Amino acid sequence: MNELTIVKVGGNLIDNESDLDSFLNAFASIQGKTLLVHGGGKLATNMATRLGIETKMVNGRRITDAENLKLVTMVYAGFVNKNIVVSLQSKGKNAIGICGCDLNIIKAEKRKHPTIDFGYVGDIIEVNTSALSELIEKNIALVIAPITHDGNGQLLNTNADSIVTDIAIALSKIYKVKLIYSFEKAGVLQSLENEMDAIPTLSEEQIKEMQQGGAIHTGMMPKTDNAIKAIKNGVNEVIIGNLVAIQNNQSKGTRIIGN
Amino acid sequence: MNELTIVKVGGNLIDNESDLDSFLNAFASIQGKTLLVHGGGKLATNMATRLGIETKMVNGRRITDAENLKLVTMVYAGFVNKNIVVSLQSKGKNAIGICGCDLNIIKAEKRKHPTIDFGYVGDIIEVNTSALSELIEKNIALVIAPITHDGNGQLLNTNADSIVTDIAIALSKIYKVKLIYSFEKAGVLQSLENEMDAIPTLSEEQIKEMQQGGAIHTGMMPKTDNAIKAIKNGVNEVIIGNLVAIQNNQSKGTRIIGN
Repeated sequence: MNELTIVKVGGNLIDNESDLDSFLNAFASIQGKTLLVHGGGKLATNMATRLGIETKMVNGRRITDAENLKLVTMVYAGFVNKNIVVSLQSKGKNAIGICGCDLNIIKAEKRKHPTIDFGYVGDIIEVNTSALSELIEKNIALVIAPITHDGNGQLLNTNADSIVTDIAIALSKIYKVKLIYSFEKAGVLQSLENEMDAIPTLSEEQIKEMQQGGAIHTGMMPKTDNAIKAIKNGVNEVIIGNLVAIQNNQSKGTRIIGN
Repeated sequence: MNELTIVKVGGNLIDNESDLDSFLNAFASIQGKTLLVHGGGKLATNMATRLGIETKMVNGRRITDAENLKLVTMVYAGFVNKNIVVSLQSKGKNAIGICGCDLNIIKAEKRKHPTIDFGYVGDIIEVNTSALSELIEKNIALVIAPITHDGNGQLLNTNADSIVTDIAIALSKIYKVKLIYSFEKAGVLQSLENEMDAIPTLSEEQIKEMQQGGAIHTGMMPKTDNAIKAIKNGVNEVIIGNLVAIQNNQSKGTRIIGN
């Protein structure tokens, strides 16, 4: 099996031009086949404010109405996606920026929920591994924006951590996949005092204990939950960490292991 | 040589949901290999107004400053591009939406002009035919947004008529290319009274005469000039017309012929 490195980048990294550039240098330095899934950072929120589009919340959950879908399609699939690709090209890394509707790579369905209508939010049904692998085999870096579709003409806003996890699981059937959830910190931290001091390995059991004890804060929950899902479903290596620190050998991040 | 149909769509068609749907039905009904280049319509202007981004003009020419580049990247490469792709997928036409930086398909340079700084406007240097044909050979409809790049990390706003013309010329080396500049009218009209009465064929000489006599209005000039450039540089068949009318056998449009 060929190796494939899949990276998720999101949050603060995308909002800062110089941080994003360092991140993309690190990404471009990865040897072999690569795939990147990005979020949208605060730009979508800033743009919403400028456009007078309100953030809709129901019971504390964010809703994607038609105006917000238009916004995230513009910001994620347009601005952020193309800015990442144009930068990678300048670093000599051939790349292509796409989202879930392109080549039908991610089919999703509008979220079903007993009480809340989330609007145009998609839950993933299927990842098209053959379409993805045909591009990966050409050694083109795939840059994927977190927008999916339902196959009936509807774009859907989909969580980037869920997308990267499901893509990594699907592609682990044909590649030896290393999955890195990259963010500004070095990994799951030993203590909040030192942002570069990551816990080297964590098992599902240890993560559950930490979650129950309040040692993993709410913002990290989706990342640790997705990391567990990935390692339990065929992904060869799962790391929560900082890609720049990893590529510079400053930190290996937190490796998530099976029990 | 395999046949390839290349279509440009722009203007009013993109702004009206139902017109765009009819157009995409017509596009999806084309047999064989296809490529579509789209503009951005009035959505970019509307969005600029909402965002308070001014249209910059110097000597009557539009300038693309950093804010306007951000805007067209969002609207053209994001919203319009993905809405076309998601619609084609729902019609059973597998498609991929990309722009000039993706796979390095269109390299451009910032426009050089003795007196006017056009800002981030790109003039095309090179079309990457092998990258395009690899996707075309898989019978995937290519949907291309009019954004290019300079290879050094800079996205550039580029005229969609120029893009489709240069792509058609480049690909005519490996395909028998039919190029259709599609718009709301049936073609170059016999008279302004009847929008469905197109002049069947026009040669370069006839077009030049009409242009000099004022019979072709300013808005049509870039289209007729590009059409002449295409037919003189290897494109097999060049038509200015309405794709819906052509596919429904209501009008053949205006065929541009060599002298």
